[in-house]
Amino acid sequence: MNRALLIVAHGSRREASNEEIRRLTERVRAEAGSSYHSVICAFLELADPSIPTGIEQCITEGAEEVIVLPYFLSAGRHVSLDIPQEVEVTQRKHPGVRIRIAPYLGGAEGISGMLLDCAR
Amino acid sequence: MNRALLIVAHGSRREASNEEIRRLTERVRAEAGSSYHSVICAFLELADPSIPTGIEQCITEGAEEVIVLPYFLSAGRHVSLDIPQEVEVTQRKHPGVRIRIAPYLGGAEGISGMLLDCAR
Repeated sequence: MNRALLIVAHGSRREASNEEIRRLTERVRAEAGSSYHSVICAFLELADPSIPTGIEQCITEGAEEVIVLPYFLSAGRHVSLDIPQEVEVTQRKHPGVRIRIAPYLGGAEGISGMLLDCAR
Repeated sequence: MNRALLIVAHGSRREASNEEIRRLTERVRAEAGSSYHSVICAFLELADPSIPTGIEQCITEGAEEVIVLPYFLSAGRHVSLDIPQEVEVTQRKHPGVRIRIAPYLGGAEGISGMLLDCAR
Protein backbone atom coordinates (compact mmCIF):
# COMPACT_ATOMS: atom_id res chain seq x y z
CA MET A 1 0.00 0.00 0.00
CA ASN A 2 1.31 3.45 -0.91
CA ARG A 3 1.72 5.41 2.30
CA ALA A 4 2.42 9.12 2.69
CA LEU A 5 3.70 10.98 5.73
CA LEU A 6 2.43 14.53 6.23
CA ILE A 7 4.35 16.46 8.89
CA VAL A 8 2.05 19.20 10.21
CA ALA A 9 3.62 22.22 11.91
CA HIS A 10 1.93 25.30 13.30
CA GLY A 11 3.36 27.74 10.77
CA SER A 12 5.01 31.05 11.59
CA ARG A 13 5.13 34.66 10.41
CA ARG A 14 8.91 34.16 10.57
CA GLU A 15 9.71 32.53 7.24
CA ALA A 16 12.95 31.04 8.60
CA SER A 17 10.88 28.88 10.98
CA ASN A 18 8.78 27.55 8.10
CA GLU A 19 11.97 26.88 6.15
CA GLU A 20 13.30 24.93 9.14
CA ILE A 21 10.25 22.65 8.87
CA ARG A 22 10.80 22.19 5.13
CA ARG A 23 14.44 21.25 5.70
CA LEU A 24 13.46 18.85 8.48
CA THR A 25 10.92 17.28 6.13
CA GLU A 26 13.67 16.70 3.58
CA ARG A 27 15.78 14.97 6.23
CA VAL A 28 12.84 12.77 7.27
CA ARG A 29 12.24 11.92 3.59
CA ALA A 30 15.87 10.90 3.17
CA GLU A 31 15.81 8.75 6.33
CA ALA A 32 12.44 7.19 5.54
CA GLY A 33 13.84 5.36 2.53
CA SER A 34 11.12 3.28 0.92
CA SER A 35 8.77 3.31 3.95
CA TYR A 36 6.79 6.20 2.49
CA HIS A 37 5.78 6.99 -1.03
CA SER A 38 5.76 10.72 -0.16
CA VAL A 39 6.98 12.72 2.84
CA ILE A 40 5.75 16.31 2.76
CA CYS A 41 4.91 19.06 5.23
CA ALA A 42 1.87 21.26 5.79
CA PHE A 43 1.00 24.10 8.12
CA LEU A 44 -2.02 24.73 10.34
CA GLU A 45 -1.80 28.45 9.62
CA LEU A 46 0.42 31.30 8.43
CA ALA A 47 2.28 29.24 5.80
CA ASP A 48 1.61 27.03 2.78
CA PRO A 49 0.53 24.38 2.03
CA SER A 50 -2.49 24.05 4.33
CA ILE A 51 -3.34 20.64 5.82
CA PRO A 52 -6.09 19.88 3.23
CA THR A 53 -3.78 20.92 0.39
CA GLY A 54 -0.99 18.77 1.82
CA ILE A 55 -3.26 15.73 2.07
CA GLU A 56 -4.54 16.33 -1.48
CA GLN A 57 -0.94 16.44 -2.70
CA CYS A 58 -0.21 13.08 -1.02
CA ILE A 59 -3.27 11.61 -2.73
CA THR A 60 -2.33 13.08 -6.11
CA GLU A 61 1.09 11.46 -5.69
CA GLY A 62 -0.67 8.11 -5.26
CA ALA A 63 -1.11 7.68 -1.51
CA GLU A 64 -3.69 5.14 -0.37
CA GLU A 65 -2.91 5.90 3.26
CA VAL A 66 -1.86 9.27 4.70
CA ILE A 67 -0.29 9.54 8.16
CA VAL A 68 -0.67 13.04 9.59
CA LEU A 69 2.02 13.74 12.15
CA PRO A 70 1.51 16.81 14.40
CA TYR A 71 4.86 18.50 14.97
CA PHE A 72 3.66 20.04 18.23
CA LEU A 73 4.93 19.90 21.79
CA SER A 74 1.69 20.00 23.75
CA ALA A 75 -1.77 18.54 23.45
CA GLY A 76 -3.48 21.92 23.17
CA ARG A 77 -6.47 22.77 21.00
CA HIS A 78 -4.41 22.71 17.80
CA VAL A 79 -3.63 19.03 18.36
CA SER A 80 -6.92 17.99 19.92
CA LEU A 81 -9.37 19.99 17.78
CA ASP A 82 -7.99 22.01 14.87
CA ILE A 83 -5.89 19.34 13.16
CA PRO A 84 -8.56 16.58 13.48
CA GLN A 85 -11.12 19.01 12.05
CA GLU A 86 -9.02 19.80 8.99
CA VAL A 87 -8.33 16.10 8.49
CA GLU A 88 -12.02 15.22 8.83
CA VAL A 89 -13.03 17.66 6.08
CA THR A 90 -10.52 16.12 3.68
CA GLN A 91 -11.36 12.55 4.71
CA ARG A 92 -15.00 13.15 3.73
CA LYS A 93 -13.89 14.14 0.22
CA HIS A 94 -11.72 11.02 -0.13
CA PRO A 95 -13.53 8.16 1.61
CA GLY A 96 -11.35 5.59 -0.17
CA VAL A 97 -8.12 6.92 1.33
CA ARG A 98 -7.20 6.01 4.89
CA ILE A 99 -6.09 9.11 6.82
CA ARG A 100 -4.66 8.52 10.28
CA ILE A 101 -3.39 11.04 12.82
CA ALA A 102 -0.20 9.88 14.58
CA PRO A 103 0.65 10.87 18.18
CA TYR A 104 1.99 14.44 18.42
CA LEU A 105 5.73 14.82 18.96
CA GLY A 106 5.58 16.04 22.59
CA GLY A 107 3.50 13.00 23.57
CA ALA A 108 5.95 10.51 22.10
CA GLU A 109 7.45 8.02 24.50
CA GLY A 110 11.01 8.65 23.34
CA ILE A 111 10.94 12.39 23.96
CA SER A 112 12.48 12.17 27.45
CA GLY A 113 15.44 10.17 26.12
CA MET A 114 15.80 12.66 23.30
CA LEU A 115 16.05 15.54 25.79
CA LEU A 116 18.83 13.72 27.61
CA ASP A 117 20.61 13.30 24.26
CA CYS A 118 20.25 17.03 23.52
CA ALA A 119 21.76 17.89 26.90
CA ARG A 120 24.90 15.85 26.27
CA MET B 1 30.95 17.82 39.46
CA ASN B 2 27.30 18.32 40.43
CA ARG B 3 25.36 18.96 37.26
CA ALA B 4 21.76 20.13 36.94
CA LEU B 5 19.47 19.97 33.92
CA LEU B 6 16.97 22.79 33.50
CA ILE B 7 14.31 22.08 30.87
CA VAL B 8 13.00 25.43 29.62
CA ALA B 9 9.56 25.53 27.97
CA HIS B 10 7.65 28.53 26.67
CA GLY B 11 4.84 28.38 29.24
CA SER B 12 1.15 28.53 28.47
CA ARG B 13 -2.08 30.12 29.72
CA ARG B 14 -3.44 26.59 29.52
CA GLU B 15 -2.35 25.04 32.81
CA ALA B 16 -2.62 21.50 31.37
CA SER B 17 0.24 22.34 28.97
CA ASN B 18 2.46 23.48 31.85
CA GLU B 19 1.55 20.32 33.75
CA GLU B 20 2.57 18.28 30.71
CA ILE B 21 6.05 19.86 30.95
CA ARG B 22 6.24 19.07 34.68
CA ARG B 23 5.32 15.44 34.06
CA LEU B 24 7.84 15.20 31.23
CA THR B 25 10.48 16.65 33.58
CA GLU B 26 9.71 13.90 36.11
CA ARG B 27 10.19 11.28 33.38
CA VAL B 28 13.50 12.83 32.33
CA ARG B 29 14.60 12.88 35.99
CA ALA B 30 13.75 9.20 36.35
CA GLU B 31 15.61 8.28 33.14
CA ALA B 32 18.61 10.48 33.93
CA GLY B 33 19.59 8.30 36.89
CA SER B 34 22.74 9.65 38.48
CA SER B 35 23.80 11.80 35.48
CA TYR B 36 22.25 14.90 37.02
CA HIS B 37 22.09 16.09 40.58
CA SER B 38 18.80 17.91 39.79
CA VAL B 39 16.42 17.87 36.82
CA ILE B 40 13.85 20.65 36.98
CA CYS B 41 11.80 22.76 34.57
CA ALA B 42 11.33 26.49 34.09
CA PHE B 43 9.22 28.68 31.84
CA LEU B 44 10.08 31.66 29.66
CA GLU B 45 6.71 33.26 30.45
CA LEU B 46 3.15 32.62 31.68
CA ALA B 47 4.13 29.96 34.25
CA ASP B 48 6.45 29.43 37.22
CA PRO B 49 9.29 29.08 37.93
CA SER B 50 11.00 31.62 35.66
CA ILE B 51 14.38 30.77 34.11
CA PRO B 52 16.39 32.76 36.72
CA THR B 53 14.40 31.17 39.57
CA GLY B 54 14.93 27.72 38.06
CA ILE B 55 18.69 28.26 37.76
CA GLU B 56 18.82 29.61 41.33
CA GLN B 57 17.02 26.47 42.51
CA CYS B 58 19.59 24.26 40.75
CA ILE B 59 22.38 26.21 42.46
CA THR B 60 20.67 26.02 45.88
CA GLU B 61 20.46 22.26 45.39
CA GLY B 62 24.23 22.19 44.90
CA ALA B 63 24.78 22.45 41.14
CA GLU B 64 28.23 23.53 40.00
CA GLU B 65 27.15 23.28 36.36
CA VAL B 66 23.66 24.00 34.99
CA ILE B 67 22.62 22.82 31.52
CA VAL B 68 19.72 24.85 30.15
CA LEU B 69 17.76 22.88 27.57
CA PRO B 70 15.30 24.84 25.40
CA TYR B 71 12.19 22.72 24.83
CA PHE B 72 11.37 24.56 21.61
CA LEU B 73 10.83 23.46 18.03
CA SER B 74 12.27 26.38 16.12
CA ALA B 75 15.20 28.72 16.44
CA GLY B 76 13.07 31.85 16.81
CA ARG B 77 13.78 34.84 19.02
CA HIS B 78 12.90 32.93 22.20
CA VAL B 79 15.73 30.49 21.54
CA SER B 80 18.20 32.92 19.99
CA LEU B 81 17.65 35.97 22.21
CA ASP B 82 15.25 35.68 25.15
CA ILE B 83 16.62 32.52 26.78
CA PRO B 84 20.31 33.55 26.42
CA GLN B 85 19.44 36.94 27.94
CA GLU B 86 17.78 35.40 31.00
CA VAL B 87 20.71 33.02 31.40
CA GLU B 88 23.25 35.85 31.09
CA VAL B 89 21.62 37.85 33.89
CA THR B 90 21.78 34.85 36.23
CA GLN B 91 25.31 33.92 35.15
CA ARG B 92 26.56 37.36 36.18
CA LYS B 93 25.21 36.81 39.70
CA HIS B 94 26.91 33.41 39.95
CA PRO B 95 30.26 33.66 38.18
CA GLY B 96 31.49 30.46 39.87
CA VAL B 97 28.76 28.31 38.36
CA ARG B 98 29.07 27.12 34.77
CA ILE B 99 25.81 27.68 32.90
CA ARG B 100 25.60 26.20 29.41
CA ILE B 101 22.72 26.35 26.90
CA ALA B 102 22.19 23.04 25.08
CA PRO B 103 20.85 22.82 21.50
CA TYR B 104 17.07 23.37 21.34
CA LEU B 105 14.94 20.29 20.76
CA GLY B 106 13.91 21.06 17.16
CA GLY B 107 17.55 21.44 16.14
CA ALA B 108 18.59 18.06 17.53
CA GLU B 109 20.05 15.61 15.07
CA GLY B 110 17.77 12.76 16.21
CA ILE B 111 14.53 14.64 15.65
CA SER B 112 13.94 13.24 12.14
CA GLY B 113 14.30 9.66 13.38
CA MET B 114 11.97 10.49 16.26
CA LEU B 115 9.30 11.69 13.80
CA LEU B 116 9.54 8.42 11.91
CA ASP B 117 9.08 6.58 15.23
CA CYS B 118 5.99 8.67 16.04
CA ALA B 119 4.48 7.84 12.67
CA ARG B 120 4.79 4.06 13.22
